[in-house]
Amino acid sequence: MVILSNFRFSDVSHSVKLPKMKFYKTLIICLLFLSSSLSIYAQKGHDLWLQYAEITGDNLKNTYLDEIQSVTFSSQSETTGKAQEELQIAWRSFFGQELAVNTTLQNKALWLATEKELPKPLQQQLKTDFAHINEEGFLIKKLQFKGKAIMLISAKKEIGLLYGTFRFLKELQLHQPIEKIAITDSPKIQKRVLNHWDNLDRTVERGYAGFSIWDWHLLPELIKPEYIDYARANASVGINGTVLTNVNANSLVLSPQYIEKVQALADVFRPYGIQVYLTARFSSPVETGDLETADPLDPEVRKWWKNKADEIYQSIPDFGGFLVKANSEGQPGPNNYGRTHVDGANMMAEALAPHNGIVMWRAFVYSEDDPEDRAKQAYSEFVPFDGQFAENVLIQVKNGPIDFQPREPFHPIFGAMPDTPLMMEFQITQEYLGFSSHLVYLPKMFQETLETDTYTAGKNSTVAKVIDGSLSHKKLTGMAGVANIGNESNWTGHPFGQANWYGFGRLAWNPYLDSRTIAEDWLKMTFSTDEEFVRTVSDMMLQSRESVVKYMTPLGLHHIMATGHHYGPGPWVSNLSRPEWNPVYYHKADSLGVGFDRTTSGSDALSQYANPIQQEYENPETTPEEFLLWFHHLPWDYQMKNGKTLWFNMSSTYQEGVEEVQKMIQTWQGMKKFVDEQRFQKVSMLLQIQLKEARWWRDACLSYFKQFSKMELPENVPQPEHNLDYYKSLKFPFAPGIRPSWN
Amino acid sequence: MVILSNFRFSDVSHSVKLPKMKFYKTLIICLLFLSSSLSIYAQKGHDLWLQYAEITGDNLKNTYLDEIQSVTFSSQSETTGKAQEELQIAWRSFFGQELAVNTTLQNKALWLATEKELPKPLQQQLKTDFAHINEEGFLIKKLQFKGKAIMLISAKKEIGLLYGTFRFLKELQLHQPIEKIAITDSPKIQKRVLNHWDNLDRTVERGYAGFSIWDWHLLPELIKPEYIDYARANASVGINGTVLTNVNANSLVLSPQYIEKVQALADVFRPYGIQVYLTARFSSPVETGDLETADPLDPEVRKWWKNKADEIYQSIPDFGGFLVKANSEGQPGPNNYGRTHVDGANMMAEALAPHNGIVMWRAFVYSEDDPEDRAKQAYSEFVPFDGQFAENVLIQVKNGPIDFQPREPFHPIFGAMPDTPLMMEFQITQEYLGFSSHLVYLPKMFQETLETDTYTAGKNSTVAKVIDGSLSHKKLTGMAGVANIGNESNWTGHPFGQANWYGFGRLAWNPYLDSRTIAEDWLKMTFSTDEEFVRTVSDMMLQSRESVVKYMTPLGLHHIMATGHHYGPGPWVSNLSRPEWNPVYYHKADSLGVGFDRTTSGSDALSQYANPIQQEYENPETTPEEFLLWFHHLPWDYQMKNGKTLWFNMSSTYQEGVEEVQKMIQTWQGMKKFVDEQRFQKVSMLLQIQLKEARWWRDACLSYFKQFSKMELPENVPQPEHNLDYYKSLKFPFAPGIRPSWN
Repeated sequence: MVILSNFRFSDVSHSVKLPKMKFYKTLIICLLFLSSSLSIYAQKGHDLWLQYAEITGDNLKNTYLDEIQSVTFSSQSETTGKAQEELQIAWRSFFGQELAVNTTLQNKALWLATEKELPKPLQQQLKTDFAHINEEGFLIKKLQFKGKAIMLISAKKEIGLLYGTFRFLKELQLHQPIEKIAITDSPKIQKRVLNHWDNLDRTVERGYAGFSIWDWHLLPELIKPEYIDYARANASVGINGTVLTNVNANSLVLSPQYIEKVQALADVFRPYGIQVYLTARFSSPVETGDLETADPLDPEVRKWWKNKADEIYQSIPDFGGFLVKANSEGQPGPNNYGRTHVDGANMMAEALAPHNGIVMWRAFVYSEDDPEDRAKQAYSEFVPFDGQFAENVLIQVKNGPIDFQPREPFHPIFGAMPDTPLMMEFQITQEYLGFSSHLVYLPKMFQETLETDTYTAGKNSTVAKVIDGSLSHKKLTGMAGVANIGNESNWTGHPFGQANWYGFGRLAWNPYLDSRTIAEDWLKMTFSTDEEFVRTVSDMMLQSRESVVKYMTPLGLHHIMATGHHYGPGPWVSNLSRPEWNPVYYHKADSLGVGFDRTTSGSDALSQYANPIQQEYENPETTPEEFLLWFHHLPWDYQMKNGKTLWFNMSSTYQEGVEEVQKMIQTWQGMKKFVDEQRFQKVSMLLQIQLKEARWWRDACLSYFKQFSKMELPENVPQPEHNLDYYKSLKFPFAPGIRPSWN
Repeated sequence: MVILSNFRFSDVSHSVKLPKMKFYKTLIICLLFLSSSLSIYAQKGHDLWLQYAEITGDNLKNTYLDEIQSVTFSSQSETTGKAQEELQIAWRSFFGQELAVNTTLQNKALWLATEKELPKPLQQQLKTDFAHINEEGFLIKKLQFKGKAIMLISAKKEIGLLYGTFRFLKELQLHQPIEKIAITDSPKIQKRVLNHWDNLDRTVERGYAGFSIWDWHLLPELIKPEYIDYARANASVGINGTVLTNVNANSLVLSPQYIEKVQALADVFRPYGIQVYLTARFSSPVETGDLETADPLDPEVRKWWKNKADEIYQSIPDFGGFLVKANSEGQPGPNNYGRTHVDGANMMAEALAPHNGIVMWRAFVYSEDDPEDRAKQAYSEFVPFDGQFAENVLIQVKNGPIDFQPREPFHPIFGAMPDTPLMMEFQITQEYLGFSSHLVYLPKMFQETLETDTYTAGKNSTVAKVIDGSLSHKKLTGMAGVANIGNESNWTGHPFGQANWYGFGRLAWNPYLDSRTIAEDWLKMTFSTDEEFVRTVSDMMLQSRESVVKYMTPLGLHHIMATGHHYGPGPWVSNLSRPEWNPVYYHKADSLGVGFDRTTSGSDALSQYANPIQQEYENPETTPEEFLLWFHHLPWDYQMKNGKTLWFNMSSTYQEGVEEVQKMIQTWQGMKKFVDEQRFQKVSMLLQIQLKEARWWRDACLSYFKQFSKMELPENVPQPEHNLDYYKSLKFPFAPGIRPSWN
């Protein structure tokens, strides 16, 4: 919803004679309504990037209203019904009026029709356009038809019409000309899926925006309006799947009692083209009390999963399938029965295949018993299985080889399993990037991974090409994002967290998009199209990811967060039972230096990458400095490219991170005039938290590492406010994102 | 309230030739905006009873606008600033305009001034009015002053001005005439306090409206707009205290880290006259690691609490005090050290007294080792202490002797401790009354308790008179309500749950109010002033409490809910470790009959009541039938007043309860035209849950009791849908309101 921002009173005031007084009064009343609409409860945060801000420029508004005077639907499906609803919501908000719906096509109409609903001559005329789009794609085209000027939104299927509608509305939100519009677009990735790490008790693992939006207890009867808003938001960016439950799964969700609840959500999401998926706990046949084993080669177990799939599809005919975390961090899996990931995944795939369901099997595995570098283990375990998974299995791989750090090199599995469909797993929720109180624009980071060249099939074998299937001709493709959504009134806690949800959707649709474009689009749709605002704030967003790297984990440092909740710094932690859970495992700081040697002289994790990466990174001199300590253990006085020591650079970079947050605060203060009071204030308050915590990171990490470097801080870096013992003593038993029972 | 979003006028400027046409167009556009304002995100639920619905009747609107043309504030405190804000919010929403603020008093002004700020002659003129109000009271009076017509809101203190403002706005919401307004009002109870059973991990014990609104992790920096909305809502009904944390307390909230967070909330609430309280875990001196004992007679312990109080008051000068659950359901307390409740309470009172803080010490105690009827234990333990508590201690007593059942007789402590200030504890959250999915209007139940005669000081010694201190001249008085508030967008989950929060506030202000008046006021302020609507729905609300008694626990049955979460029926439960946690303990059904004999032939709990209650209730014939099985164990074929058997009446009453819910559904369907779509649909969906669960209660309970009665169901009662084993087999491990870790 939109508030009038640029009302020009002078436009109206002159020359109205008689009714002037009364007219004025009306105007004043109207104006006052506008100004008061935020006083009681501002809902702008809830409306995300679907604000549909009033279009105020006379020319633009008149042009739009002249171009589109009615709408005609050739399709009458539930999905086109949603397109119609959305058009009306937008029209009221953009223009303060309804869009007339006509059953017969009028001049200057918006026309929604699938390809086969179009008259043959038109089908023929648009043949090339249709050839360019896939089953989910759409075309938007201004054309003449039987003497009428028509704005056509067409597609092969109804969902394309909905996507086309959202795209068309986006053009209006962005104030684009539409007179000669001619857009064809299709998603480049098939499964564009949110992963909700939501537990059935409504806690959300790594959730920082309140609790789960799924109110299981009151389902299936109570359909909250929020479920519909969620579907609209996802459909608007092309997200077409949602895994409702945590990868650390509970088999109860597969019980009839819960399938009924899942069905109710699936019914809400279906018209928006969103399939529902569930996490399947591998030991479910045992936990339900039905069987005594979950051995994937046991015929009874295979039958159990087949029956379970049949049961689910009876209620949810378009059920998406299962996401599975197996033999990872204590979750049960096929290894418990001496079987492999292939055995496990293929068993579930077999059960789902008759219904066109898929298995998303996570490659996030590492063992406490395996002395091998954790960064190597997933590759070592999965690459040998290349080509052995069933056709409807996607292997879901995190962007980097450790765990969603502020910066990681790409996961070496990408490109290394050419005969297996690989699905990208990004984390939208900021587990290691400041929770929901740090402004960090993640699409910049996602883009960095996607555009990295793996060199696995020669130059230009980017991660994006692995993911969209083009590198090795994959039919099944997917991208997953671990959601940052909770029951906060604005969904994501931090108003800028919405940009990460939005940006994930955009990149899942097209992994070649530039993150700056995404930021600009989001800012315009969410806040303001003002040029100064968009330029200033998009710059700030694009910088923000590097800032968090600087004040948390500069120069390739990683996984030095505090234990469990990962809130704040904990580089000193060394007492956890599993060695690879301890920060000291990752930074290996000692009197001689700091960093994890992953070259041939160390763990040789580097050998999992193709050349020229291997060669380049083997030598610290040719290793990109942002990955220096990821791959090398270097002396504190190691001389870096700027001629200064490693210690100097580490310290200065921490300080730069803090200063960049200070700059963000200044920048944001200058944006007050473009933003409504509530969102402006919320961002301002959160930036103060970010600054406080950036300083905490700097002071705690430098205090800790200084013990080993024995070197002084550079002049521009202030002395830590407290001593190291103070930072070590801090405890946060109720930091969010961990299950209360873990406290 | 009405939102007029994104209206724009610039198009009007081009068409000055036909101003009238355009004027209509403007109006139409305005109207369209109004109708569309809910399309994206309806916020009516969030605004509670402060909708300030547009005043549309010309006469009424003109009268109001004529009567009040400006406002003048003689006070410039933070609190009067809030009154000013509220007036503007209301004015915009009622009338679509600002209320002009004048520093000098104009004709037809609203004037806010404390008594001492009034000119002497006016003070003199209003002497009688001021004599009628107390420190928190107010007067609203239309008067002539120096030739000007003035609408005066005055009070002894600023908070009275805020209360008077809310009261004045309520008059407008209720469309009352104000030309000759003359209201004086004061709260009859001093401490009007919400108890939040909110844990620091944001789970809420017995919370059914999502999770805690206190976002501890982001405090003190992030002040959510919801905190302010919460304060406004409470102040509007006169609630002047809030206990932020669960009675099952965590000592961490007393740490400096959390006191800083509590302070931030206290700072938000202070201008609204709301004091912040905390729950104090008795063992805190030990748990913090400071001491090895929490013995209340140990000088070190006493010093610890004194220092702690001093520390808190340094940050929060108006801190309210502590609420303590001690030696109850596993909580630590003075008994652990061989000391009494008096020792414990007085120790804390001593620490708080220098700062004017109070202790609210709960009388909710019962012991697993005590074979005495649980209903008797609190009385037995506390009554002997009468007169021994410090002056700043309130003993907080639940309305009934067991635990917030759909119906209980009043707690026998009321009236039995004339020398001790007693505080009422009502439960607003519906732990035993259908969670947030059953429409149950609780003020009807609260009123039943309050107006009951205890006879402890002769006839007309009502519970209300005990609570407001008038029966035995108490200075310190209080009423607590266990909040039903969570982070759901509408605060309470069920839209009608808001009425219970509202009604609690109203009764805490004046325990003699009629619950029908409260329901009518609430409906008008929340939904519509339409007469048919208010009459129909208030009837439905008033009936609703009896309905839940009928379909859950008719005829004095009690505590037969399922274990732990208390969701649904569990009369068969008999395997819990503590005997008094088992439903069979309470209903004692066997082949001979059903009910708990609390007469002289049984536990003699009746002896804790005064005469004539004792005498009347001793005999089943003269016992009110709604308490029959609370006090008597009677044969299944016991003949009741209608000539039918006990079994017949029990069965029929369950059936009546179900039918009454069906009738509520019908009634509500007829109200569609009065209610916005979102709230209408939500109530409709929830009523379906209520019906499903009412049937479940009826079928499960009758199936269970039938085993003992061996009698057939009356003809009008349908056979249960399932057999008893089915009902016994139902499991709800994630029912809300219990800590996830309890699963």
